Amino acid sequence: MARSEVTGKGHSNRITDVEGVLVGHETLSEGSVQTGVTAVLPHGGNVFREKVTAASHVINGYGKTSGMMQLEELGELETPLLLTNTLGVGSCLNALLDHALEENEEIGRTSGTVNPVVGECNDMFLNDIRSRSITTEHARRAIRAAGREFREGSVGAGRGMLCYSMKGGIGSSSRLISVDKVTYTLGVLVLTNFGVMSDLTFHGKQIGKYWADKVKAEPHEDKGSIMIIVATDLPVTHRQLTRILKRSVTGLSRTGSFIGNGSGDVVIGFTTAKDHPPLPDYLLDGAFRAVGEAVEEAIFRSLQESEPVTGRNGFRPPTWSELMGKYPI
Amino acid sequence: MARSEVTGKGHSNRITDVEGVLVGHETLSEGSVQTGVTAVLPHGGNVFREKVTAASHVINGYGKTSGMMQLEELGELETPLLLTNTLGVGSCLNALLDHALEENEEIGRTSGTVNPVVGECNDMFLNDIRSRSITTEHARRAIRAAGREFREGSVGAGRGMLCYSMKGGIGSSSRLISVDKVTYTLGVLVLTNFGVMSDLTFHGKQIGKYWADKVKAEPHEDKGSIMIIVATDLPVTHRQLTRILKRSVTGLSRTGSFIGNGSGDVVIGFTTAKDHPPLPDYLLDGAFRAVGEAVEEAIFRSLQESEPVTGRNGFRPPTWSELMGKYPI
Amino acid sequence: MARSEVTGKGHSNRITDVEGVLVGHETLSEGSVQTGVTAVLPHGGNVFREKVTAASHVINGYGKTSGMMQLEELGELETPLLLTNTLGVGSCLNALLDHALEENEEIGRTSGTVNPVVGECNDMFLNDIRSRSITTEHARRAIRAAGREFREGSVGAGRGMLCYSMKGGIGSSSRLISVDKVTYTLGVLVLTNFGVMSDLTFHGKQIGKYWADKVKAEPHEDKGSIMIIVATDLPVTHRQLTRILKRSVTGLSRTGSFIGNGSGDVVIGFTTAKDHPPLPDYLLDGAFRAVGEAVEEAIFRSLQESEPVTGRNGFRPPTWSELMGKYPI
Amino acid sequence: MARSEVTGKGHSNRITDVEGVLVGHETLSEGSVQTGVTAVLPHGGNVFREKVTAASHVINGYGKTSGMMQLEELGELETPLLLTNTLGVGSCLNALLDHALEENEEIGRTSGTVNPVVGECNDMFLNDIRSRSITTEHARRAIRAAGREFREGSVGAGRGMLCYSMKGGIGSSSRLISVDKVTYTLGVLVLTNFGVMSDLTFHGKQIGKYWADKVKAEPHEDKGSIMIIVATDLPVTHRQLTRILKRSVTGLSRTGSFIGNGSGDVVIGFTTAKDHPPLPDYLLDGAFRAVGEAVEEAIFRSLQESEPVTGRNGFRPPTWSELMGKYPI
Repeated sequence: MARSEVTGKGHSNRITDVEGVLVGHETLSEGSVQTGVTAVLPHGGNVFREKVTAASHVINGYGKTSGMMQLEELGELETPLLLTNTLGVGSCLNALLDHALEENEEIGRTSGTVNPVVGECNDMFLNDIRSRSITTEHARRAIRAAGREFREGSVGAGRGMLCYSMKGGIGSSSRLISVDKVTYTLGVLVLTNFGVMSDLTFHGKQIGKYWADKVKAEPHEDKGSIMIIVATDLPVTHRQLTRILKRSVTGLSRTGSFIGNGSGDVVIGFTTAKDHPPLPDYLLDGAFRAVGEAVEEAIFRSLQESEPVTGRNGFRPPTWSELMGKYPI
Repeated sequence: MARSEVTGKGHSNRITDVEGVLVGHETLSEGSVQTGVTAVLPHGGNVFREKVTAASHVINGYGKTSGMMQLEELGELETPLLLTNTLGVGSCLNALLDHALEENEEIGRTSGTVNPVVGECNDMFLNDIRSRSITTEHARRAIRAAGREFREGSVGAGRGMLCYSMKGGIGSSSRLISVDKVTYTLGVLVLTNFGVMSDLTFHGKQIGKYWADKVKAEPHEDKGSIMIIVATDLPVTHRQLTRILKRSVTGLSRTGSFIGNGSGDVVIGFTTAKDHPPLPDYLLDGAFRAVGEAVEEAIFRSLQESEPVTGRNGFRPPTWSELMGKYPI
Repeated sequence: MARSEVTGKGHSNRITDVEGVLVGHETLSEGSVQTGVTAVLPHGGNVFREKVTAASHVINGYGKTSGMMQLEELGELETPLLLTNTLGVGSCLNALLDHALEENEEIGRTSGTVNPVVGECNDMFLNDIRSRSITTEHARRAIRAAGREFREGSVGAGRGMLCYSMKGGIGSSSRLISVDKVTYTLGVLVLTNFGVMSDLTFHGKQIGKYWADKVKAEPHEDKGSIMIIVATDLPVTHRQLTRILKRSVTGLSRTGSFIGNGSGDVVIGFTTAKDHPPLPDYLLDGAFRAVGEAVEEAIFRSLQESEPVTGRNGFRPPTWSELMGKYPI
Repeated sequence: MARSEVTGKGHSNRITDVEGVLVGHETLSEGSVQTGVTAVLPHGGNVFREKVTAASHVINGYGKTSGMMQLEELGELETPLLLTNTLGVGSCLNALLDHALEENEEIGRTSGTVNPVVGECNDMFLNDIRSRSITTEHARRAIRAAGREFREGSVGAGRGMLCYSMKGGIGSSSRLISVDKVTYTLGVLVLTNFGVMSDLTFHGKQIGKYWADKVKAEPHEDKGSIMIIVATDLPVTHRQLTRILKRSVTGLSRTGSFIGNGSGDVVIGFTTAKDHPPLPDYLLDGAFRAVGEAVEEAIFRSLQESEPVTGRNGFRPPTWSELMGKYPI
């Protein structure tokens, strides 16, 4: 009987290992403005005309992600995905509309409108979020910057984020899945902004407790969030893709999250596969393992890749590298 | 045993019969710009600080309503509700953020952020939707204009809408519900933009077929939508309110809708009741009848109150009054 | 551009117009035992080995339908569907297990188990439901009796049901849908047990009010339910089938239902199509119209075909034929 | 500002630490019949007349749990909860009906019917599940046996279960939650039947990989399931209780589960609180932590408490104690 299994990591261990997927950042960093936009494109073409099968899953809905209702109803994505700070959603929506209207003259004339999808986390501790610094132009630049190579850590939407009381941001990872001798790829990009230090668990070790003692981290309420973007080339239906996205929570849980009340934890995913008959469900186990592993690793990469940021009120959270340097495990 | 029943209509037969609820419009009407914004406020105070129990229900998710994920997770509304055209959602989101940030210094400093809720329909046939004419200032004006008295028909977000191939827009209605000798109110406001003429059914009469023959209405695809806002003072939980909202579809169906693929049919509701123990579920039947009746009537009022509008490309759909005048039933 | 439209009714205007679908009844009628079982088979083969794509939709979840969780997760049906009275669900579950275990030696040995699906309505007014008269043998007989020809009205699970305060039961109807020159079939079978007489609306006419006055029907609480089974050969995914099922409520609403608190209104559907690429969503409108029309008609057929039944405590509700004979409209 | 936190474990570290909750087992153990029934009662009274607020959450719906639709619609539980093997659901449903009909003469006469809730896992490796050995009498005995004291491990519904390729079954655990100086209790009971040995993770240590090497455990597909029952006395609404149940998955994930395709992972919960105003959502964090911790611990207890069972075909899986004895960590 055919089986599916995880056979390793993708070439660059990033979401862009999925053929066609592109990522771009626009980073704002000046004084108390520490924020940005990150764009994930399912392919480099016209997404409105070449839509991709998509799905979403809400782990905890305390968030302002926009565009999920239609994505769920029709099971497709028709714009790039943008990530930004919570109060930048309106600008990013408008930028996606600008972008789609420029590329597609039929919108609002012969074809109906377009459904922009924007996710967010709240970067208010490092970024003066009330200043509403994200403009449509920033969002457009993130889209234009999209490529297969991209940075992780304190960049793009990740610039001002905090994760487990240290510097968080953008992380990515990928896995190869062998299904009946064919190899597929599943990639993850996360925007991390959740958790308190003492909960952090690294491959089963409670390093968060250890570090929290050392740095005398004050317990605070977990008010953060995580946006998880999943890309794959597996031939799956909307229903099956939803099943894959739901397994993201296993990776999140293993890093120590208890999914706090204030944490908007949202997963959006798409497949670039077209016109292939979908896999039978019993062959999804490889993808189920892959997404959990990739989410767990991507969260750590968002920490490990983050460089120091000094933001609003001079706040400067520790970085993973600093903590690991001073208090190795 | 206690019973609940519909005992009549509210004083003004509008959503503002629910104590505290306010409605305001901002209408844009110049050449091919025929659009606007309509605001529904659960009360005249600071909604962020005095949140109301809220819920939503998606009849058909082909739409771009924003803010529903958090509304569902927490079961509460913390901004005014805005309705506008599909490409105006970004501006309305930003206006709600402006409004909330001005009123609440704690947002983004000590309290987390705020969840703006915006609904939309696509008015592209009468309005040059690609011109993106809705600004944050328009949205702010709709909020400021909110009062107990308000117009229906071709006003606010309803300016450019089409319903059953004739002029649609804003309609409202209310019902009184007697529950164990206490009288509660349930009010509805709709933004109608759905349906083809031949489907229109008025109190069981297929006047749409009759009129469509007369005016030689061409069959076209139903690409429209309806936004349904429900307000009440019934003491109900989020779960019970959701049950009430789900019954909106009975009224919609009776007007002739078959809920077309392209019709984003979305219901959002709130209760102004506070600190009362919720009703037992068997006493919800009055509310279930009320919401169906009120939605049906509000849809007709949106037609009956609409004045003629000439919009993009000189398009001027017939109005209910004109059709009824020429082809009475 | 391709279109989809309803082009008429199927040959026999029944659910069995969908190629392969079979229906069987087992009717119990003796004194205060007036009940039964109705079986709907997606095809005459081994359903466990040849599963069909399936979906469900809960209009109002006040009911005891069993088997929907797995049907939703995997999007498939692997047993015949059984309908019965509320307290007969356990026996019908066991009968489906007996049936599946006999046909499939691998169950519980090499293949995991099987997910039986049983729907129900409460026939307590005509049937002594507390006597628990449904046995597994009754259920097995309903399956064995399945054929393309079947009776409607006071038969099978419909034996003891009441609809709009008159004799209800089993009704069926079908529609042909033309999609881009290919003709598909959609059929509906309902088990009706809901509504109060004064709400009944027949093609827009409130004959229920008229009749209720004549027969001095006492207002009573709507505690009934409706089970709606939808079969089709349209090539659609689980997601699209769900969208079709959701439109059942338009037909239900047009007959006068307000979806009372106590009414468990549940839709289960399947498609017999295999290995065809699914239709694009914009071609679903024909199916959306078809299901609303077919549900409305099937409800009336359940009334029109019902013969008189005298049940528990000598209760004998009026039939549609009797009312129409005495008080024609 | 008020806070909520986990302050420790309950007195007996079992679900029955929640005041009023009772658990009973009926165990069948003879040759290839190794199965049973476990009953969880929200209180010792008449549950149909004193219903409790309840909710459910489906982690993975590959299972046959019955009764969840109405439980979700009305947000209440009105019978004891029964757990058993997959093919015993029909008998347990019938037993709950017998029980409810005996206790409540109004059922099926003046009050409508009753919604029995039964969960299951597939014990086919140790138990000859095809023999359908569970009778209504076994289920009734489990209810009658219910008390505050109960055994864990290879008892009741847990008799034939496998978890992480070793003997699984019934486990339980509880936590105390301090909310604004008031102490509440949350308890968990699990029926474990999921996972492959190499995935097992114990407080971050991958002991499963270590043991799997030692015992040369063959990799097999994860076809199991877990039923998670959560009881609490926290004053929460149906919506809030659902939020708590959703966090069960964090504990499950930490034990190593990737939530395989074939694993029906289902959570059902209730609160015994009555007539208290519900907590604000920001005070749920204590319950969110508690349920994750308690689920994780209960899973381990189901392993640690399990005694050896030799079942069908002489199969005798290793127990935790045996593995720990031979291969200590």
